[in-house]
Amino acid sequence: MTVKAAILAIGDELLSGRTRDTNIHFLAQWLNERGVTLSEVRIVADELDDICDALNALRTRYDYVMTSGGIGPTHDDITFEAVAMAFGCSVVEHPQARKILDDWYAKKELEVTPERARMALMPEGARLIENKASGAPGIMIENVFVMAGVPRIFQAMVGAIEPYIEGGAKVHSKAVTAIGLPESKLARQLADIQSALNGVSIGSYPIDGDEMGVTIVARSENEALAQTAIESVIAAMRALGFDPKAGDH
Amino acid sequence: MTVKAAILAIGDELLSGRTRDTNIHFLAQWLNERGVTLSEVRIVADELDDICDALNALRTRYDYVMTSGGIGPTHDDITFEAVAMAFGCSVVEHPQARKILDDWYAKKELEVTPERARMALMPEGARLIENKASGAPGIMIENVFVMAGVPRIFQAMVGAIEPYIEGGAKVHSKAVTAIGLPESKLARQLADIQSALNGVSIGSYPIDGDEMGVTIVARSENEALAQTAIESVIAAMRALGFDPKAGDH
Repeated sequence: MTVKAAILAIGDELLSGRTRDTNIHFLAQWLNERGVTLSEVRIVADELDDICDALNALRTRYDYVMTSGGIGPTHDDITFEAVAMAFGCSVVEHPQARKILDDWYAKKELEVTPERARMALMPEGARLIENKASGAPGIMIENVFVMAGVPRIFQAMVGAIEPYIEGGAKVHSKAVTAIGLPESKLARQLADIQSALNGVSIGSYPIDGDEMGVTIVARSENEALAQTAIESVIAAMRALGFDPKAGDH
Repeated sequence: MTVKAAILAIGDELLSGRTRDTNIHFLAQWLNERGVTLSEVRIVADELDDICDALNALRTRYDYVMTSGGIGPTHDDITFEAVAMAFGCSVVEHPQARKILDDWYAKKELEVTPERARMALMPEGARLIENKASGAPGIMIENVFVMAGVPRIFQAMVGAIEPYIEGGAKVHSKAVTAIGLPESKLARQLADIQSALNGVSIGSYPIDGDEMGVTIVARSENEALAQTAIESVIAAMRALGFDPKAGDH
């Protein structure tokens, strides 16, 4: 069984080039380790309609959708509102979220201003995602997980959703690299190996640097099949006079 | 006039977590410097339907679409085919592209195998994007620019498309950072400044690290307006007892 997920990263700063996203790469690895295939990623601006449309496209298509960004206390944090729009529900104060905020700020001897309290205004019916890093929780609603954009907080929240993610078959990955070999020289052999084997996906990735070379990755839910594929690739590389280095990837 | 673009990054390796994308961040900055607003990014797998659907959604919605990945010589390189599907046209050998490949491999004393020649099979009507890094060209078709995924080659191709990109009003960006200030403390003032000023967009970005603090960015096509906004933010920070550090961003 293949379980599929999508990531929706939200934030003007990702599109302006100001911030280089790290959440997508982190979550891509995390999902794959848990047998969830990341099938699509979208990045959109802090605009209600853009967030709402993207979320509706993704949540109906994939088993899980994880979002990052736009759930803080400032005017540009509009993700909860956009999620409510997407689900056609109201935004209401979540009593448990409000209590978490009250306790968090009481401990810091800070007032719960209307702007801070705004972080408890959530789509009706949402369940909370704990935030050990900075208090204000994320939310789960149906198959959508709404998390913070700040990487440290995002990662804390990803840790908290682990019990709610049911993975499918884990994809096993085997890799081999041949320095000096241009991928075009191996292209026919790769196509032959790929068409001879069902249930394995072979990817070819040229090395990007001063040194020429290529890494071949075989991915399959069947580990033995991935191994068979990569051994065929190794044999083909040797037949071309190259000395491949294998490894898991 | 606002000119909008989207990026479509193609490749299983970006979704499996094997590779961390660098092209999106590079192109986001490049576009913004040229007065083009990057409005959406999508990452999809090496699947014909996924690439085709995403491309059709983006090319009808934005002024420009730039793609990266899937134009090499191996079996998993299917972007040209997917682009032809999206435009409803055939894939044919592009004579000029074929000549470039013939000359490139002749110089290296390598044979033009069917796999290498495949890189000249392009959607009918496509124009070429020069590739100074590795020979095999990218393509332009209508408002879509199809480029390689390897960052060194991608960047060479981005350089080559510059004459074809017409930017709109450049967005000016001013930033200020206050160490020690939590964004929630400044949230009301930011909302007030934002609602008093039309045509400027104020973003609030908590510092992610051991040090608490916040960076505020004001972006506007009107540089004086961005400056006015950031000066109001600086005044608000000082009023709260913090010592802000301004800068362009």
